[in-house]
Amino acid sequence: MNNFNFKNPTKIIFGKGEIENLANEIPENAKVLLLYGGGSIKKNGIYNKVTAALNNFEVVEFGGIPANPEYAVLMEALKVIKTENITYLLAVGGGSVIDGTKFLSAAAVYNGDTPWDILTQNIRTEKGMPFGTVLTLPATGSEMNSGAVITREETKEKLAMGGPGLFPEFSILDPEVIKSIPKRQLANGLADSFTHVLEQYMTYPIDAKIQDRFAEGILQTLIEIAPTILNEEFDYKAASNFMWSCTMALNGLIQKGVPTDWAVHAMGHELTALYGIDHARTLAIITESHYKYNFESKKEKLAQYAERVWNITEGSIDDKAYEAIEKTTEFFKSIGINTKLSEYTSDYEGTAEEIAKRFTNRGWLGLGEHQSLSPEKVEKIVKMAY
Amino acid sequence: MNNFNFKNPTKIIFGKGEIENLANEIPENAKVLLLYGGGSIKKNGIYNKVTAALNNFEVVEFGGIPANPEYAVLMEALKVIKTENITYLLAVGGGSVIDGTKFLSAAAVYNGDTPWDILTQNIRTEKGMPFGTVLTLPATGSEMNSGAVITREETKEKLAMGGPGLFPEFSILDPEVIKSIPKRQLANGLADSFTHVLEQYMTYPIDAKIQDRFAEGILQTLIEIAPTILNEEFDYKAASNFMWSCTMALNGLIQKGVPTDWAVHAMGHELTALYGIDHARTLAIITESHYKYNFESKKEKLAQYAERVWNITEGSIDDKAYEAIEKTTEFFKSIGINTKLSEYTSDYEGTAEEIAKRFTNRGWLGLGEHQSLSPEKVEKIVKMAY
Repeated sequence: MNNFNFKNPTKIIFGKGEIENLANEIPENAKVLLLYGGGSIKKNGIYNKVTAALNNFEVVEFGGIPANPEYAVLMEALKVIKTENITYLLAVGGGSVIDGTKFLSAAAVYNGDTPWDILTQNIRTEKGMPFGTVLTLPATGSEMNSGAVITREETKEKLAMGGPGLFPEFSILDPEVIKSIPKRQLANGLADSFTHVLEQYMTYPIDAKIQDRFAEGILQTLIEIAPTILNEEFDYKAASNFMWSCTMALNGLIQKGVPTDWAVHAMGHELTALYGIDHARTLAIITESHYKYNFESKKEKLAQYAERVWNITEGSIDDKAYEAIEKTTEFFKSIGINTKLSEYTSDYEGTAEEIAKRFTNRGWLGLGEHQSLSPEKVEKIVKMAY
Repeated sequence: MNNFNFKNPTKIIFGKGEIENLANEIPENAKVLLLYGGGSIKKNGIYNKVTAALNNFEVVEFGGIPANPEYAVLMEALKVIKTENITYLLAVGGGSVIDGTKFLSAAAVYNGDTPWDILTQNIRTEKGMPFGTVLTLPATGSEMNSGAVITREETKEKLAMGGPGLFPEFSILDPEVIKSIPKRQLANGLADSFTHVLEQYMTYPIDAKIQDRFAEGILQTLIEIAPTILNEEFDYKAASNFMWSCTMALNGLIQKGVPTDWAVHAMGHELTALYGIDHARTLAIITESHYKYNFESKKEKLAQYAERVWNITEGSIDDKAYEAIEKTTEFFKSIGINTKLSEYTSDYEGTAEEIAKRFTNRGWLGLGEHQSLSPEKVEKIVKMAY
């Protein structure tokens, strides 16, 4: 096990009816900016619950944060924070709204030339404007971590940011919000959290037994509950397990003391930036070819995953590892997610070269747990995913 | 899954060499009370590492906190805190020193008649004197939770306390400290953490899949590493997994959203109070008879544990459940821990009646996950453990 630091101070408030208790978590006299997305919270009743709970606070609203939170939109929200003297941010939404709120938390206290620096210069925020979240879509884990990914349409870029000051002070996780989420987004949440775990697990053995068991436990849970989550009928138990799985998949715990990969995300982000493909689906597109291309360096962990998660006990390490890749693709397909780029766009020629060029330009010359994936290798992996 | 709140703000600093970085975690100008136990840290070099790291701080020392931290001794330390105007506490030790430090953190800010109230009136500390820990003995999990158990020899009592203000600000976990720990104490740590997990897991099914998988993962890890931990030769990898298992076993995570038992601890504490038997060993004494006595209400979870942890796949639920109890006893024996009270004392007659009487006097009329274990039942369970 590698040395590590772990601190995650976010307070999780989990369960049905907990949105009612929102006011207890926000400082008295706070002036709150309520941030949300495209307005689905107004249709599904969450907006009403939240505003009812906030009736003793001065609240300003900012809606319209898009999926893949857009820099230009967030800069509008930043103006509101400054002109309205906002002191507390409340994100009501999924990963995009929460990520956007993290950017605003950092930007609100940033003193440099332009907040764009935070993204391009990788400026870590030690203490941002305080914020909490009401999670409406389990998937990204953003509700219990300190990272965010922001998109800038103007330059077709998607960049990451973070820092110890960007943990939500609290996050309310009410599994009943899942009732009104479209199946497409639930499938995305399943694929997203599944891939989050894989990125922190599918590297090389380092004998971190707890981290491995926890990662495997989340994967097993997601596989087990996926059919129930995608059923027409709402199931509170499955919804609870789904919501907690997504949070545990990316709250820092399973990545401590182990090597991590994240190359699938790096490549996937480009597919979203280029074609607007849902984030989770881009991960499903890249996963199989990434694991096949890096088979030799990942096969021991793939075989462990085969045994413990898929119960594949026959065959050599290579056999098990290969079968586990196939099982992973089958899992994505079973939840209605296509795994080839050509199933999403017919205009895919040149994509691999373009992504490789972008990585070269950014100086991303060695991705993955061995920092060995050069832009040339990235090009091959993306091509295999056509 | 039940509704729950989870917040654990302790910063974990994990790995070899990390004690050197201690000074970064303590506020400048702090006046530190360095608390430790019987002095083993002076023999194994940890004391020297700690004092070297603290050379820029004003430090007062208080050694001699005994296993089962004793109220009378802690009251002496409290005097030192007051007369020396201490502002920061640093526990260097195992669960006893850390638990004692938590009591002091609470007592230092308590304004009532006597700090004994904190224990007898269950006063929760919202904000104690800040403290950090350097863990020297993995076992209790106290390094990442907000609870403590304090003993008072005068009245032969052992009482629990806690509160959200009693999380360590940081805990340094260097697996190399395990090198110098006597085998007896390592065996205790294995049994203690194993039982901590069981208390939060071996109840009735509530379909909290992540919590179950995590609990099972810790149990599997402890079983897997136990022989290596008890070997003569030090193994850093096993030590790391052991240390992290003990912390994860009782940092609150696996108990959230699920019913918990803790009756084994309640009975075990009395055996320590009455006979001075090591805490972990009292748990091993009670476990088998507790699970046999409560077989009907626990058998579904026992069977799940049989399948997933012990790989027992044949037979009925009852068969598997029963075999899992036997396996648990075998595990304790395999690490050199006896599981019957008569193996520790010949003077055991009347113990069950005495414990039942104490529970009646304290008004503890219904222990366990169903709050159904009356003092009469406790008497029977303890008798079965003779």
